[in-house]
Amino acid sequence: MPDTAHPKTDSNGFSVTTGELPGSKKIYVTSERMDDVRVPMREIHLHPTANEPPVRVYDTSGPYSDPAAEIDIYKGLPPLRQNWVEGRGDVERYTGRDIRPEDNGNVDDKYLAPEFPVKVQPLRARDGKAVTQLAYARAGIITPEMEFVAVRENLARAQAAEEAAKTARDGEDFGAEIPDFITAEFVRDEIARGRAIIPVNINHPENEPMIIGRNFLVKINANIGNSAVTSSIAEEVDKMVWATRWGGDTVMDLSTGRNIHNTREWILRNSPVPIGTVPIYQALEKVDGVAEDLTWEIYRDTLIEQCEQGVDYFTIHAGVRLAFIHLTAKRVTGIVSRGGSIMAKWCLAHHKENFLYTHFEDICEIMKAYDVSFSLGDGLRPGSIADANDEAQFAELRTLGELTKIAWKHDVQVMIEGPGHVPMHKIKVNMEEQLKHCHEAPFYTLGPLTTDVAPGYDHITSAIGAAMIGWFGTAMLCYVTPKEHLGLPNRDDVKAGVITYKLAAHAADLAKGHPAAQIRDDALSRARFEFRWEDQFNLSLDPETARDFHDQTLPKEAHKVAHFCSMCGPKFCSMKITQEVRDYADGLTDNQKRDLERMSEEERERGMAEMSAEFKKRGSEVYLPAEKTPGPAE
Amino acid sequence: MPDTAHPKTDSNGFSVTTGELPGSKKIYVTSERMDDVRVPMREIHLHPTANEPPVRVYDTSGPYSDPAAEIDIYKGLPPLRQNWVEGRGDVERYTGRDIRPEDNGNVDDKYLAPEFPVKVQPLRARDGKAVTQLAYARAGIITPEMEFVAVRENLARAQAAEEAAKTARDGEDFGAEIPDFITAEFVRDEIARGRAIIPVNINHPENEPMIIGRNFLVKINANIGNSAVTSSIAEEVDKMVWATRWGGDTVMDLSTGRNIHNTREWILRNSPVPIGTVPIYQALEKVDGVAEDLTWEIYRDTLIEQCEQGVDYFTIHAGVRLAFIHLTAKRVTGIVSRGGSIMAKWCLAHHKENFLYTHFEDICEIMKAYDVSFSLGDGLRPGSIADANDEAQFAELRTLGELTKIAWKHDVQVMIEGPGHVPMHKIKVNMEEQLKHCHEAPFYTLGPLTTDVAPGYDHITSAIGAAMIGWFGTAMLCYVTPKEHLGLPNRDDVKAGVITYKLAAHAADLAKGHPAAQIRDDALSRARFEFRWEDQFNLSLDPETARDFHDQTLPKEAHKVAHFCSMCGPKFCSMKITQEVRDYADGLTDNQKRDLERMSEEERERGMAEMSAEFKKRGSEVYLPAEKTPGPAE
Repeated sequence: MPDTAHPKTDSNGFSVTTGELPGSKKIYVTSERMDDVRVPMREIHLHPTANEPPVRVYDTSGPYSDPAAEIDIYKGLPPLRQNWVEGRGDVERYTGRDIRPEDNGNVDDKYLAPEFPVKVQPLRARDGKAVTQLAYARAGIITPEMEFVAVRENLARAQAAEEAAKTARDGEDFGAEIPDFITAEFVRDEIARGRAIIPVNINHPENEPMIIGRNFLVKINANIGNSAVTSSIAEEVDKMVWATRWGGDTVMDLSTGRNIHNTREWILRNSPVPIGTVPIYQALEKVDGVAEDLTWEIYRDTLIEQCEQGVDYFTIHAGVRLAFIHLTAKRVTGIVSRGGSIMAKWCLAHHKENFLYTHFEDICEIMKAYDVSFSLGDGLRPGSIADANDEAQFAELRTLGELTKIAWKHDVQVMIEGPGHVPMHKIKVNMEEQLKHCHEAPFYTLGPLTTDVAPGYDHITSAIGAAMIGWFGTAMLCYVTPKEHLGLPNRDDVKAGVITYKLAAHAADLAKGHPAAQIRDDALSRARFEFRWEDQFNLSLDPETARDFHDQTLPKEAHKVAHFCSMCGPKFCSMKITQEVRDYADGLTDNQKRDLERMSEEERERGMAEMSAEFKKRGSEVYLPAEKTPGPAE
Repeated sequence: MPDTAHPKTDSNGFSVTTGELPGSKKIYVTSERMDDVRVPMREIHLHPTANEPPVRVYDTSGPYSDPAAEIDIYKGLPPLRQNWVEGRGDVERYTGRDIRPEDNGNVDDKYLAPEFPVKVQPLRARDGKAVTQLAYARAGIITPEMEFVAVRENLARAQAAEEAAKTARDGEDFGAEIPDFITAEFVRDEIARGRAIIPVNINHPENEPMIIGRNFLVKINANIGNSAVTSSIAEEVDKMVWATRWGGDTVMDLSTGRNIHNTREWILRNSPVPIGTVPIYQALEKVDGVAEDLTWEIYRDTLIEQCEQGVDYFTIHAGVRLAFIHLTAKRVTGIVSRGGSIMAKWCLAHHKENFLYTHFEDICEIMKAYDVSFSLGDGLRPGSIADANDEAQFAELRTLGELTKIAWKHDVQVMIEGPGHVPMHKIKVNMEEQLKHCHEAPFYTLGPLTTDVAPGYDHITSAIGAAMIGWFGTAMLCYVTPKEHLGLPNRDDVKAGVITYKLAAHAADLAKGHPAAQIRDDALSRARFEFRWEDQFNLSLDPETARDFHDQTLPKEAHKVAHFCSMCGPKFCSMKITQEVRDYADGLTDNQKRDLERMSEEERERGMAEMSAEFKKRGSEVYLPAEKTPGPAE
């Protein structure tokens, strides 16, 4: 398929996938309240015989899927939010921090990756103000970002919402408060209450605002990032675009090797979704990988470096407290979070409290000046089924709750990271404890994996846990790829991870009873029932794989209109028979239906009578021995 | 990998995969009570540095994974159960029914598939006796089949069971009664109560007995079968062997095209696991695909044909009653079960009650003479999220409960089929209704799929539902492959489906708190933590894929012993750091731990004090506007 086959690479190795998805049209819906708020969506058009309107779906792919957009990786995406940010009059441009050799791991020039060609002075808040969506929300201000997500969450589907309002909600939301229709005021209120966040650094104007909260659609994050061992900038930019094409709501750049700074710059300037990072990874590179040598000053410097670049949220492992570390000693897999283990090592080496904890208020001061959101890291999360829900994990979670309140006092947006590896019967309590101790701040979990026995399939072992915890209330699910625990994901793994998590998040939305979530399922089911193969492919989360699988069995074009499928063949098709059954049944009068009932009742009586006659006739033979044990006949 | 790369095919196109799995040894454990009961198991051997015993796992692969076994597809497998069956002295050989042209769909000679070379006279019960495991169980008899499954379920792990007995059960079993140790008497009692079945046709002596019940390990079924459109006998035999190699506990032959009889014979004679069928498929072929032309006589003849061949369980759609059919008229996807739609069409064409219902006792009389188990089909199961849990589905389920009691009176073993397509919040009630109306007969569900939007990934949309309903109490999960709804599964799809369902079933066993279920997870987690890569691969459900994924990133052999992984690189490895943390923490005295607590408490106090000072200082600025809305500070 041309539109997603890996495109030609340029002389620097850059290449990203562009173009509309099969059967789809990129549209923009303009807000009725703010005419510079144009929200991208995708419309899937159905076959005329369907006689149905196009199905509108949430679109994370940015300008790359817009045939009218000019994509130039060397220029970056248009700064969608520039005027909104500057229009608020509370920010200033300034001479940012100079890029230093250690920012790229002191790599030799011959290995140094190219800088991003365009340089812009960074913005920051004027005179100590908080320029965060939380500050505006608390001040009663509805920002364009809030209006954007309101239109986006509804897919501008007021009508569907009206229908939803008429019918009883079908779902179990475990105490969430999902409205029939998302208004900008509802968005503002949820943010003001700390129940949702919009991760939007003022220095990432390319970012199309999205919201993370229990009362909104469940979101997914895709991890990318090069490592000390392998992979290049071009690969990572390609993966970022590829991940958002298939539905990644945010992307975390977990790069750990050389060229971290330059890699991140290329990703940010070309990313239509929020970018998250784990700043301690880069800080560690700056001290040549020796955890003991980390200092607050180096970490602080790294935070500012990344704030100025435009990172939208930081994973910060401030809950890994000195007193908790020994609680992990008896674990099967100890501390598996990279950030967590680095901080644990630092704490023990110096026998001091975690400096991310002691300097937490200083961190808040920095983040509020750029509107970077906290993703409070679960550095002590379990790394195996055996370690799930232990005291180390929950002690840290309670600390993250304390820190949430401190961050909120500084008007900094917060979400909370969760596990990890958890068997099914221990998943729900994770959500309950998080709600209880973290004051309803959004939960952001990795999976969880529900068993450890399937390396190579951990996108699936974790999709089970992810769908469940998403249903229980987790706001964003961090994907796991088939390569988890084994290797670095390539673009095929990234797609497998994204599609798997999209279906898990959607299953959660259905179970929560999210209004209109079922529209796509129903449209696809009708297409399936009516043998509209093209519609069935196009409505799928992955149209190309669906088509490809169909064509492996029935390649002929004719079969895509044929009223039978490869499973049964032309003469033997349940769907076909069902249609006849339906036509017949539709013709029944109520009287005929009553007759049917009566007739079947008589049949049943007769059946039972025969049965008991049979019972008597054979009783002695069968039931004498049976008396030895309570049989079903008793 | 030589042992599972597709082997060379012979002149007739036959080829099956043989040999041990990586790092594994095929063993046989002889019963202490019956020395002709030798139970196959697989031992996964770990690296000497692990200093751990081999991990024993449940083995469904039959003689194919035994290097000592001579495999000859043309002879079939050795008749393991022959002496057990004939030793009971209640069966007789007789001249079976002649094979007729219609048995193979009246195919022209040039398309007729070869008959299986070896012919054996079939067995049947003497003078109307019931020769079923249920009849023996009720009579208080412990059969070799029961002893076999008792040893098999425990993996002969008395010691692990003792440990399990000592520690509190970690799991939620929703009222199941899973003992710490499975005795043959427990097996007998569960069968006598109808809570478990051992599907073992007396004419399938090659079948290694396995048990299906809520208080045993969760099982999985793999569907194979050719169709009117495509595929050959050799392919199907290969798929059967391939499916059991990776963990298929039973296999259903859903063939629908020509050569049904001969295809089934080759499969049965070479199958170490129970084979299930849907007899109405073949009956329909005998009337040239015209449902209205079906008669009880043709169906009865087909049942006997398949009983004599050795089919272990029949899906019979006796619950599709005339009075229920119109209840499906308003559905989005009507009737999607093939068998269900055939019977619905017949009922309406003749305006008569389903002949499978009216002749149910006659069917019992036939099945008890061969010990074929019922899999009471859910012909009215929902085919989409929109149709889940509707009255048509539950009306049929209640009927299946009535039929269960009738079958039990004839000493015929029964399991109940379940959906299908069900959103997460509607899954549990399916299990509850089934337990309530079907008297605890084992539940056997297809998935369920938890969303309809991901054709191409329905092994995953359904693994979510399968893991959940398995946890709730479903005894066997019918797999779904990536090709579901799109095409016929090839051998790669069969493997993907089997591995996906094995991990879902295992996740369910963990959540139920099945004793010793976690042994494999823990062994793998320790291997992961200690960088025993080979052990990690070998302990995986799919060692080859795990190894392959690892090698894609770090091909060098050296890396398989290196104490770091591709995600972090040598200097930056959380596992490595954690080991140091652990060594340190292990050295702490209790006093030191107390000091840590105190110190951290002081830190916390200080943090809070600073925070509230900050709060006062900035309060007026931040909180006046905030009063507009209830902020987290309130």
